[in-house]
Amino acid sequence: MNRVVMKFGGSSVATIEKMKAVAARVIRRHESGESVVVVVSAMGKTTNQLLELAAQASRNPSKREIDLLLSTGEQVSVSLLTLIFNDLGYPAIGLTGQQAGIKTIGLHTKNKIDDIDPTKILKHLDDGKIVVVAGFQGINEEGDITTLGRGGSDTTAVALAAKLSCNAEIYTDVSGIYGVDPRLYPQASQLAAITYEEMKEMAFLGAKVMEPRSIEIGHRFNVNILVASAHTDEPGTWIKEHVPMEHKSITGISVSENVILVSLHHLPPKAKVIADLFVKLAQNEINVDIISQNMTPDGTMDVAFTASMDDMATVHAVLDSIQLTHPQSQIVIDPDIVKVSVVGSGMRTQSGVAAKLFELFSQNDIDFKLVTTSEISISYTMDKSLKTKAVALIAGTFNL
Amino acid sequence: MNRVVMKFGGSSVATIEKMKAVAARVIRRHESGESVVVVVSAMGKTTNQLLELAAQASRNPSKREIDLLLSTGEQVSVSLLTLIFNDLGYPAIGLTGQQAGIKTIGLHTKNKIDDIDPTKILKHLDDGKIVVVAGFQGINEEGDITTLGRGGSDTTAVALAAKLSCNAEIYTDVSGIYGVDPRLYPQASQLAAITYEEMKEMAFLGAKVMEPRSIEIGHRFNVNILVASAHTDEPGTWIKEHVPMEHKSITGISVSENVILVSLHHLPPKAKVIADLFVKLAQNEINVDIISQNMTPDGTMDVAFTASMDDMATVHAVLDSIQLTHPQSQIVIDPDIVKVSVVGSGMRTQSGVAAKLFELFSQNDIDFKLVTTSEISISYTMDKSLKTKAVALIAGTFNL
Repeated sequence: MNRVVMKFGGSSVATIEKMKAVAARVIRRHESGESVVVVVSAMGKTTNQLLELAAQASRNPSKREIDLLLSTGEQVSVSLLTLIFNDLGYPAIGLTGQQAGIKTIGLHTKNKIDDIDPTKILKHLDDGKIVVVAGFQGINEEGDITTLGRGGSDTTAVALAAKLSCNAEIYTDVSGIYGVDPRLYPQASQLAAITYEEMKEMAFLGAKVMEPRSIEIGHRFNVNILVASAHTDEPGTWIKEHVPMEHKSITGISVSENVILVSLHHLPPKAKVIADLFVKLAQNEINVDIISQNMTPDGTMDVAFTASMDDMATVHAVLDSIQLTHPQSQIVIDPDIVKVSVVGSGMRTQSGVAAKLFELFSQNDIDFKLVTTSEISISYTMDKSLKTKAVALIAGTFNL
Repeated sequence: MNRVVMKFGGSSVATIEKMKAVAARVIRRHESGESVVVVVSAMGKTTNQLLELAAQASRNPSKREIDLLLSTGEQVSVSLLTLIFNDLGYPAIGLTGQQAGIKTIGLHTKNKIDDIDPTKILKHLDDGKIVVVAGFQGINEEGDITTLGRGGSDTTAVALAAKLSCNAEIYTDVSGIYGVDPRLYPQASQLAAITYEEMKEMAFLGAKVMEPRSIEIGHRFNVNILVASAHTDEPGTWIKEHVPMEHKSITGISVSENVILVSLHHLPPKAKVIADLFVKLAQNEINVDIISQNMTPDGTMDVAFTASMDDMATVHAVLDSIQLTHPQSQIVIDPDIVKVSVVGSGMRTQSGVAAKLFELFSQNDIDFKLVTTSEISISYTMDKSLKTKAVALIAGTFNL
């Protein structure tokens, strides 16, 4: 019998009415003969409400107890959705993470799935039941309830699908994955499919549809993942190993605004100076993204790099100490930039994408500052004011 | 080291503020060197809110899923109270019923505690921690979460105390147990102590401070139970095996209004007629309380009994069929009565209590209808209008 894992997020189960719509969707699949495992998140804003209570209880809450607290949210969704199935006459059973056999390791509130013992789920599926499983949670070796952190319910769904050798379907507020954010480029078209690699690249570069960790699990265990609307019957986007041969050279454009560009001018032209800078940044746990370095005609050295906006304060502190050591240097931090990344596994085989992009930018007066490339992507930092123009140009040219 | 189990109900943990007051009370005991296990209920009206959601989800909710749903209420209280202890600098750990080793058997929503494996609790107490345990819940042999039904958190507390060989302290909205309901007799004084037997008799007869089942466990395992106010430092009432020798002959008066008096007149004077009546009542699961039967001068038979107001409709149906069989009979159902019960283990050794009561009632024009006695109680049914007068007379005479 065909199995499937269907995952519904917090906004899809925010009320009993919405849960009934979820149930109707699941029942259609059950009726068509599939064995369905449903993974649910906590109802609506429950998790935030519980965290507010915890903040009232403690200024520095113990993460073990936070896990104990938060895990109740999914447990409530699971039992209510199961009651709805039963009320409609469909055999169903609700399972906590622990009861579903989800074993985790790591730090509380940030656990990782270690393994899943699917015995109980398989038994209930064999009995013809719809199995409703609490997302986001599991149990560790000490018998403590744990949660999986950001994107946890997606991770539960994909890991379960891996263990049950079936597809994972993630139902969400968006209708699928777009090559370009439609808010930036209204003509953007939704992708029918995208490879794990492309999706991971897009996610790391700023697209927020799915957390990279669940894509990573899907990739490792070759789970086909569908991202589709919880509200319509549109087809959605499949994330998988291979996409058709006629796949475009460029799959998508990802734009990140949460970035700053740091430029250091007039440094002494010595390797030790650069080493000092990046050691200090590393010691302060600042992830540096694109780096460029070049010698200037006057015999000094320029260094530029991008970092996350979140690290702005720490970057400032590190640069102040550099400035003290090298009083002649000139340091500029530019927060008004964006990083526009072009992603596509087709780049690997279809040469000339980079050349086409550089040509496009130069013909249209788009000045970019730093550029970096990976096997399947090229990223440009540029002034914020150029964002919309650049996205429209690339999307138009590559027919996204 | 001295151990104690302290239990706090839903209204005592309804808000974070109230939980902080609970924490302060527990910490005083912890600081004085005791090993404290705290048992908590769900916050305020949480359980009812969850049941309302369940009612929206299903017209006839599966009890297994109701247990899964309701158990989240105590889990939330446990984690928040534990966070408060931690925030105040006291080592504490929160445990679900399952983690506390509470194993149950029976029907979902009405489970009974089968056994407790206290290993985890003892380990944490040995580590100097305050252990916070979810009341009302446990886990059955199948690994399903279960709840204990009415009075479940009290039952958890007393059963834990039995296993840990210590006292159970039940903190509640009342300051202790009164011999007479102060709403009926404002001069009523609170009891310092009451025996298990007296308390069970009072509970079964209508006093609502504690469910008989937790008293029953206390009795069986000889756990001293304190019932005291969660809001003041008043001493409360101890429920235990023995109370001082100078204990009063009467400990308390219990009044039940949830009762009807059924009288059947002019029945044929045959044993079979009575047998038929009570077999029919039993087949309809009606618990009959006091029964009286007597022959009348005209050679017919009168039968009277009391039953619960809740069974009124069923009683009516049964009596209609009796009326059909015996058309000459006359049947009266009186809902305007109360049952006033006088309870005291001293009755066993101090004779004359019954005589004194009968004398008191006759001198004061209190007509009672049916009377029944047990080893440690006498119950009178009488007209509702006589309730206050009767209670005041008994309480005044026996100095309650």
